[in-house]
Amino acid sequence: MHFELTREYIEKLVAGIQQQDIELVQNLTNDLHPVDIAEIFDEVDAEDARFIYLHLNKDLAADVLIEMEEDVREEFLHHLSSEEIASVFIDNMDSDDAADIIAELPEKKQDEVLSHISDVDQAGDIVDLLNYDEDTAGGLMATELISVNENWAVITCIEEIRKQAEEVDEIYFVYVVDDSNVLKGTLPLKKLLLAPEKTLIKDICNTDIISVKTDTEAENVANLMEKYNLVAVPVVDSIGRLKGRITIDDIVDVIKEGAEKDYQMISGISGDVEASDSIFKLTRARIPWLFIGMVGGVLGSLIIGGFADELKIYPEMAIFITLITAMGGNAGIQSSSIIVQGLANKSLGLDSTGRKLVKEVTIALLNGLILSSLLLIYNIAIHHSIALTLSVSVALVVEIIFASLFGTFIPLFLHRIKIDPAVATGPFITTINDVIGLFIYFYIGRFFYLFLM
Amino acid sequence: MHFELTREYIEKLVAGIQQQDIELVQNLTNDLHPVDIAEIFDEVDAEDARFIYLHLNKDLAADVLIEMEEDVREEFLHHLSSEEIASVFIDNMDSDDAADIIAELPEKKQDEVLSHISDVDQAGDIVDLLNYDEDTAGGLMATELISVNENWAVITCIEEIRKQAEEVDEIYFVYVVDDSNVLKGTLPLKKLLLAPEKTLIKDICNTDIISVKTDTEAENVANLMEKYNLVAVPVVDSIGRLKGRITIDDIVDVIKEGAEKDYQMISGISGDVEASDSIFKLTRARIPWLFIGMVGGVLGSLIIGGFADELKIYPEMAIFITLITAMGGNAGIQSSSIIVQGLANKSLGLDSTGRKLVKEVTIALLNGLILSSLLLIYNIAIHHSIALTLSVSVALVVEIIFASLFGTFIPLFLHRIKIDPAVATGPFITTINDVIGLFIYFYIGRFFYLFLM
Repeated sequence: MHFELTREYIEKLVAGIQQQDIELVQNLTNDLHPVDIAEIFDEVDAEDARFIYLHLNKDLAADVLIEMEEDVREEFLHHLSSEEIASVFIDNMDSDDAADIIAELPEKKQDEVLSHISDVDQAGDIVDLLNYDEDTAGGLMATELISVNENWAVITCIEEIRKQAEEVDEIYFVYVVDDSNVLKGTLPLKKLLLAPEKTLIKDICNTDIISVKTDTEAENVANLMEKYNLVAVPVVDSIGRLKGRITIDDIVDVIKEGAEKDYQMISGISGDVEASDSIFKLTRARIPWLFIGMVGGVLGSLIIGGFADELKIYPEMAIFITLITAMGGNAGIQSSSIIVQGLANKSLGLDSTGRKLVKEVTIALLNGLILSSLLLIYNIAIHHSIALTLSVSVALVVEIIFASLFGTFIPLFLHRIKIDPAVATGPFITTINDVIGLFIYFYIGRFFYLFLM
Repeated sequence: MHFELTREYIEKLVAGIQQQDIELVQNLTNDLHPVDIAEIFDEVDAEDARFIYLHLNKDLAADVLIEMEEDVREEFLHHLSSEEIASVFIDNMDSDDAADIIAELPEKKQDEVLSHISDVDQAGDIVDLLNYDEDTAGGLMATELISVNENWAVITCIEEIRKQAEEVDEIYFVYVVDDSNVLKGTLPLKKLLLAPEKTLIKDICNTDIISVKTDTEAENVANLMEKYNLVAVPVVDSIGRLKGRITIDDIVDVIKEGAEKDYQMISGISGDVEASDSIFKLTRARIPWLFIGMVGGVLGSLIIGGFADELKIYPEMAIFITLITAMGGNAGIQSSSIIVQGLANKSLGLDSTGRKLVKEVTIALLNGLILSSLLLIYNIAIHHSIALTLSVSVALVVEIIFASLFGTFIPLFLHRIKIDPAVATGPFITTINDVIGLFIYFYIGRFFYLFLM
């Protein structure tokens, strides 16, 4: 069925490469899916990967190139001439994949590669695609699609599909356009199979279509396709002319990347890294957020230092510092993540910011009261001083409320001013809440110790 | 194009409902996509939603039912008789959607509904589907598909597709089977259009197929379809007979739900909640993790309390408590999230656990040394005591290393013993690292103060 990459397989393959046993290496790789070969490339060193690549059959090589990790591909293309790159593209790649790969090349090499593509139409399509921002529908779409004129009969249409189909790998929909190429509808293949030969396309096509514009943001395309369970969506320009189509497999990547980015943000990791990346890359991705955490810790030390007099007289106050900051961090992240996820899914509903904040305060108050009551009972039971007992319980409620408010408000505010709200999750929100929590705890503590001791 | 839900729209609709203006309500809703109507139901109260639902046209009503949030749907079906539910299903739902909805009903009602379905074949399919675990390929698949015999000619095949196509909404692939219904290949519609009429299917079909078994886990189906960019995948039983197919739109939901679950885990939220849920539901989803955080805080207080003597003599030690715990929390979450994400994506590579831990320690050591050097310079600059300066810098390096080790090891261990590693992110890992961080800080502090003061 499908291939499972194992350590044994890699060892066998690497042994074959070391013995320059071309036949063995080809036997091991040529029946594999391009995705699997790209995965093998992550496990072997650059030299070995080159050896495998050079002995793949040409069709497979082009597909493998599309599936490679970006950094591995960059390394590869660096060693190929513009002419070799162009000849790999021709006939073997959809325009969107070709444009994505050309976009990664240095500017000068881009022009050279384009000039070596023999199919001028394809080269033209690629040049057009290169003009779109990669995070828009234009940047995602492929230009290979099947379109028919609304005034044609079913039989003409089937003839035309036969012709166009050679260029298109898979057909999900046939798009219906008018004489100016303006999108008028879609035609499920099923209807085409069921309708009498002389029926006009305009009489059987589905005119209730969902389309996106070339400048629609990729994230919005993903939300739309996901919401309406679309397998493909047509892309039109500002006056409605059909320019391309986006299929769900490209969108799955957008969805995955978006989710991974948000997940890494909340974990305090910047940049798109994975466990198999280099130590240097992983270190660089983590240190900025650790540094922010450290700055927060230093600010915290200044605040605690500011209450040094209290701490000298009542050192017992120190013992609940961790509890207060930890709870603030947890409550803040809970609130911010619900908001960030709601913004990403467009599932926040129609409530105003004010109502959302009121709701958060209510939840925070409930959680805060329950937990601080438990803590009150605990502290009474183990005979902590009344001042400490009251300080920490009151501070806990107040801190959970504040943390929840910040956790809700900051991402909503960032979203309003067009900054990705996900930056306000993870270490950022924890650090703010640590600092605020310390203030709350020590001020409340000062009050209770003043009146009760 | 597509509908945008606004507060004005809802107000107009609710006003129409209050005036019992059926025509207005129907005008406002009957042209909408079922997904949009389901979304409206989240914004109005149950009574109003019922009113809208009862005045939808029947076809639309069935589709809306599929798109509703589970709790809203449960409420609805509760008020319908088994016969009404069955009559909504017939002809209007794919078997997989029908099975999902029936599975949500109380056991007794399930049987009643099934007995009222007039198409016995469909009822049989639904009963079969109900036997599969909902988190497996069997639970995800639909039984509506187009299959042809490998021994047929293209022309017979087209005839047969015409017949079968009436039951299937959209055709992505035609599946090829032998006389025992064992899956032999797939047939892209394109090939069918291009081949001469008398060609045998077995000569043009694609036999290099990726399929899944009915008991393959949903998550693995998602990984497979995503990895190989599949739009649909056939599902076979243990002896290879074709049982159904899964399309990518169902998988998009699996991917989204998986990502959301992991995100909520790392934020310390249990259960699948969103911002628009009730205050009670949101409170209940958050309090368990806050409670864990509080237990961690109490443990922390016991540790700090255990060093009360040191704190009385050197109260300045208190000022870096927050810094140490915060940094441990951050470093731990970074490590665990990379592992959890790698496990989910199967992108961890083939390194052994030992090598992964060595890598993490190296990264932690690098980050720790850089940050604690900065902190050392800061502490010297603001004239903190040498004992405190050294304690906090050394403790910081040690704590980052420990936190990273736990962050790496715990999710790998949980995965090994078949527990979802995502539980080891967020508050869980932070809490453990808070407690360990305090130990490290105070033991190292005790050492330096003993020798340097």
